[in-house]
Amino acid sequence: MTFANVGTLGALPGRRDELVRHLTARNTTLLEVGCLLYEVGVSPGSPDTVFVMELWESESAHQGSLQLPEVQASIAAARPLLSGEFGGFRFDVVGSPLHD
Amino acid sequence: MTFANVGTLGALPGRRDELVRHLTARNTTLLEVGCLLYEVGVSPGSPDTVFVMELWESESAHQGSLQLPEVQASIAAARPLLSGEFGGFRFDVVGSPLHD
Repeated sequence: MTFANVGTLGALPGRRDELVRHLTARNTTLLEVGCLLYEVGVSPGSPDTVFVMELWESESAHQGSLQLPEVQASIAAARPLLSGEFGGFRFDVVGSPLHD
Repeated sequence: MTFANVGTLGALPGRRDELVRHLTARNTTLLEVGCLLYEVGVSPGSPDTVFVMELWESESAHQGSLQLPEVQASIAAARPLLSGEFGGFRFDVVGSPLHD
């Protein structure tokens, strides 16, 4: 079942765009482990927040990705940019008005 | 610029699945007005919540869709199923690790 993870990551003041560059660095390994969509964004009203929207083939594909050496290295490298504030939610996709 | 809207809709007790059926009823008009993705989901830990994840060609495409007669009728029909609790966030997509 397709699994969705959407979240907010708080960045330290002035470090948001660096965090965006980090999260958008090309990583096609994610496609190989079941990532279907991974979009990163910002909002004018939240200058220290980065938004992510992800779709995965399954919840276990998402969990498994967190164990990949590349992903663990990426998380470690991003950590100094983070304020420690996180938000968001996870859900199982059950349908769409656009397609079967 | 691609615009993202992700949100939670609280359903009245026992009405969640009815709200899901409502939100996932085929509506290809959305594609014609700039909707790129519209996924609907649920989560075992939140039995009275429906989750939505949307991507639009622009923020104005999203705003415009809310004025469509079909969408206004759909919102009116869903209203009796809603608890009034809403959450989520909106953002401008600036990149992805998966593609240009």
